[in-house]
Amino acid sequence: MAQIDLNSDVGESFGNWTSGDDAAILRTVSSANIACGFHAGDPLTIRATASEAVANDVVIGAHIGYRDLAGFGRRHLECSPDELAADVLYQLGALEGIALGLGSHIRYVKPHGALYHAMISHTGHAHAVIDTIAAYRESTGRDLPVLLLPGSIALDYAAEAGLRGISEAFADRSYNPDGTLVSRREPDAVLHDTEQIVENMLRLAEESVLIARDGTRIETQAESICTHGDTPGAVAMAQAVRSALEGAGVEIRSFA
Amino acid sequence: MAQIDLNSDVGESFGNWTSGDDAAILRTVSSANIACGFHAGDPLTIRATASEAVANDVVIGAHIGYRDLAGFGRRHLECSPDELAADVLYQLGALEGIALGLGSHIRYVKPHGALYHAMISHTGHAHAVIDTIAAYRESTGRDLPVLLLPGSIALDYAAEAGLRGISEAFADRSYNPDGTLVSRREPDAVLHDTEQIVENMLRLAEESVLIARDGTRIETQAESICTHGDTPGAVAMAQAVRSALEGAGVEIRSFA
Amino acid sequence: MAQIDLNSDVGESFGNWTSGDDAAILRTVSSANIACGFHAGDPLTIRATASEAVANDVVIGAHIGYRDLAGFGRRHLECSPDELAADVLYQLGALEGIALGLGSHIRYVKPHGALYHAMISHTGHAHAVIDTIAAYRESTGRDLPVLLLPGSIALDYAAEAGLRGISEAFADRSYNPDGTLVSRREPDAVLHDTEQIVENMLRLAEESVLIARDGTRIETQAESICTHGDTPGAVAMAQAVRSALEGAGVEIRSFA
Amino acid sequence: MAQIDLNSDVGESFGNWTSGDDAAILRTVSSANIACGFHAGDPLTIRATASEAVANDVVIGAHIGYRDLAGFGRRHLECSPDELAADVLYQLGALEGIALGLGSHIRYVKPHGALYHAMISHTGHAHAVIDTIAAYRESTGRDLPVLLLPGSIALDYAAEAGLRGISEAFADRSYNPDGTLVSRREPDAVLHDTEQIVENMLRLAEESVLIARDGTRIETQAESICTHGDTPGAVAMAQAVRSALEGAGVEIRSFA
Repeated sequence: MAQIDLNSDVGESFGNWTSGDDAAILRTVSSANIACGFHAGDPLTIRATASEAVANDVVIGAHIGYRDLAGFGRRHLECSPDELAADVLYQLGALEGIALGLGSHIRYVKPHGALYHAMISHTGHAHAVIDTIAAYRESTGRDLPVLLLPGSIALDYAAEAGLRGISEAFADRSYNPDGTLVSRREPDAVLHDTEQIVENMLRLAEESVLIARDGTRIETQAESICTHGDTPGAVAMAQAVRSALEGAGVEIRSFA
Repeated sequence: MAQIDLNSDVGESFGNWTSGDDAAILRTVSSANIACGFHAGDPLTIRATASEAVANDVVIGAHIGYRDLAGFGRRHLECSPDELAADVLYQLGALEGIALGLGSHIRYVKPHGALYHAMISHTGHAHAVIDTIAAYRESTGRDLPVLLLPGSIALDYAAEAGLRGISEAFADRSYNPDGTLVSRREPDAVLHDTEQIVENMLRLAEESVLIARDGTRIETQAESICTHGDTPGAVAMAQAVRSALEGAGVEIRSFA
Repeated sequence: MAQIDLNSDVGESFGNWTSGDDAAILRTVSSANIACGFHAGDPLTIRATASEAVANDVVIGAHIGYRDLAGFGRRHLECSPDELAADVLYQLGALEGIALGLGSHIRYVKPHGALYHAMISHTGHAHAVIDTIAAYRESTGRDLPVLLLPGSIALDYAAEAGLRGISEAFADRSYNPDGTLVSRREPDAVLHDTEQIVENMLRLAEESVLIARDGTRIETQAESICTHGDTPGAVAMAQAVRSALEGAGVEIRSFA
Repeated sequence: MAQIDLNSDVGESFGNWTSGDDAAILRTVSSANIACGFHAGDPLTIRATASEAVANDVVIGAHIGYRDLAGFGRRHLECSPDELAADVLYQLGALEGIALGLGSHIRYVKPHGALYHAMISHTGHAHAVIDTIAAYRESTGRDLPVLLLPGSIALDYAAEAGLRGISEAFADRSYNPDGTLVSRREPDAVLHDTEQIVENMLRLAEESVLIARDGTRIETQAESICTHGDTPGAVAMAQAVRSALEGAGVEIRSFA
């Protein structure tokens, strides 16, 4: 039977500020990218979110980011590889401590925002992140795959380090024929048609193929689908994708 | 043979700002209270400090604090017990992640600054801290004593929770006859005479007795001596205490 | 003709996190308590909010707070009076710089959250805040009233310092016979009945009287009504209060 | 009579962490680059530093930086030009409020660290900074020159905006024949010989010439010399430069 993972960003509230309908999205996805406090997520929010993930049998992943609350981790920060490595390790440990108290563990890692983009081609930052995850896996003795954009140089480094690199597809984004995302600066970068999105994701789960906006068939290794929970429309979309996949006999199951 | 622990605060630098001669103090003490990032200590500093502690066979303790870098954790912050509990757990996990990468573990916890003082009589905060440490010990399965001021209500809560509470004495402070510290507002609160300090600490290690400033003998359970590393004079004092204790056949050894 | 001020907290977003419908509330009130970056409000948010206030002829006030983004300024922070004084001055200057660029000025000050509550009886913090505002007024040469809870000790200090202290009433809160607010821990602390609220606020504007929950008439000097903009219901309530007051011939006008 | 300015970074302490011997350096320089709280400088430090500058007749400049305390403003932060503009305006206002209370004003602006380097060629950030300073000067009606590295694109933008751009030379750095600084990665990037430094700075003040490390004479428009106060050696160097200049009849005087 075909299977695929659904992941989403959660735990991104901070103190009095809330972000996203985590409760709804945690009933929908199989993998939860939980903010670790550097780009979002205060400890109380993180603990509540991790607890809700555990209650819903959703796998906990560490959504690591640059130290930049004011920028939500979306601004590139040219820290040194050593600083980044220590910042990442600190975040992994903090979330693991919280997961442990819930009888659980971090089961994967996903870089967030500008750090996610740095994984594509910033060799210093990509190495720092991958090496830190590999060392952390070594010290815990547990598998720790890393979720990335297809084509990221960090996927190569992960392979070299013996880490599982997992590629993801974006349910609501359109693709260029070479498999890269259409830039958000272009008008048709974001998809809004539920039917089209559902159809695309079914094809992905069943045939490992994405269709570029010019019709090109793109073979892809994506094992996970990134969905959003930050608006009611986004949650509904994620739920529609899940229902359609399940209806077609595709198992929704984390890669981790 | 008599034995006693020497502890000191380390890892309190932050980014470009340095604090204390950690290298020197880590060659002197048996227990290192390592800042966890909330009152001081960026991840790179924390990792370097923990690494130095391991290299010197110094036991790693988590020096947890209020979330207040601008105040160095020395200002009482009336957060809710739930917020505090989550903040403490986050700090424990973060430091544990770093220790793990060095083949080590957090072996005890010491609250810092205003949080240390809150442990004396702030029931809400004392319960939050003790309950969090007890739960964390439970989830890791490792002993996790907590280092406190004698007379702290948190020592009672620790006993109820089955945690080892460890009392400490201050090498450079004078005592009232009831065993409390002479307030810093009084002129003779801080001791500067190395000979007197060394004599006091020898008596403490060998007879479990402190001498109050009026001459009263105070029986004490202190198993650890708090020393400082933030000035050259403080480091020299700590080294003098260690030398004198060792010279008298007292073993310097962590309680943890 | 009777007149009264309506004030509300705005500019409380932070980076990616939004808070409140500032655009709607700025079409409703006469005085805008703009966050200054210490409890909420990044500079870009502050500037956009101040600009919107100016566009709506709403008076700009500095909503000063403790340095505590994680707690939204709602947790008492026992900083020293000197630290608080400098923190307040910094916030006043920052907002004034932004107002200046819009051809405007800070016209009043309102402490936020836990700092607002500290003004009631924390003599050290009340003095620090009032003295700082008084000195700032002196250095700018412009009037700078301060908005406070009736009964605050800071109102006495303001009078001594030659500052105008302005008392405010809360549209949606019920009152004890002595003029204090019914604690939020009691079930009827918050009013939800628009008709009742409107009636209360009309009486306040026309007769300077509040009715306690037991029916006692309370003479009050409140020159401003605090309303909220953080939920659609709160905005609607504020709009209903404004409409009713205007319909009754009461002028909505800032005290500043 | 020849004249030149000496500038130095001050106010870079933060809470419990101290940085530099500000008291000594403020007795030496004519212009004080005071940190504004984003890369360093808590409000209490800023106020004390500005007060000391005023007491020593040293001109106050705003040392603006990226929002990055953990990185001391030395890491490039790819914020949007709008975010940067608002961050800069906020910092200018905050320092101006403090200066105002001392009967003084900000008299110039110097970008710090990574932001200083961004002024060389990052068009978006250079425009954001210059436009903000130009607008702030407009709203205050006071001259507000900006201190920059020779060759910075921001100097061109300043000229276009009608701002005075001031170039500075570095007392302790060696120069390439094209007038750029020798990279810190090269062994002879930093000068340590007091006699050589003093000779260089005398030549600069009297002939507007720097000598490159290969002996090339570089005509330069530098009107200010950047000195340091972060080590005892640096302070002594700054004092030696001042003494030598004064001994040669060069007036030490701010450009602002």
